[in-house]
Amino acid sequence: MTDIPLAPCEKILRRNGAPRVSAEGVREFALVLEGVTADIAKEAAELAQHAGRNTVMVEDVRLARKNRK
Amino acid sequence: MTDIPLAPCEKILRRNGAPRVSAEGVREFALVLEGVTADIAKEAAELAQHAGRNTVMVEDVRLARKNRK
Repeated sequence: MTDIPLAPCEKILRRNGAPRVSAEGVREFALVLEGVTADIAKEAAELAQHAGRNTVMVEDVRLARKNRK
Repeated sequence: MTDIPLAPCEKILRRNGAPRVSAEGVREFALVLEGVTADIAKEAAELAQHAGRNTVMVEDVRLARKNRK
């Protein structure tokens, strides 16, 4: 399971063009979001540290997003 | 602004190694998550359609995640 609530996940999928979503599909989407979210957060924290700061700033988040594969 | 609540965004950033986050940094993170989330959802919906289904399944979400840049 994930910390991300499933109801909004299903809403997001529908809003982006999915007429229907399987229960397993919603859970998988929540898991994927959890992973992606953590990856971007980690990268932003590393980028702040790399720039000699303890505080994550807008530019760290933007670069983390840009660097993601 | 974004639909994603900011308090959990800040929590996720801290949990992933950010000692502190600027208010703007938290908002930017929420915006990035909103974009990434919509991108993956759109791709999953397209993949389901491509496979001749109306229902998004686990495999659509997994492939959408894998295909992302």
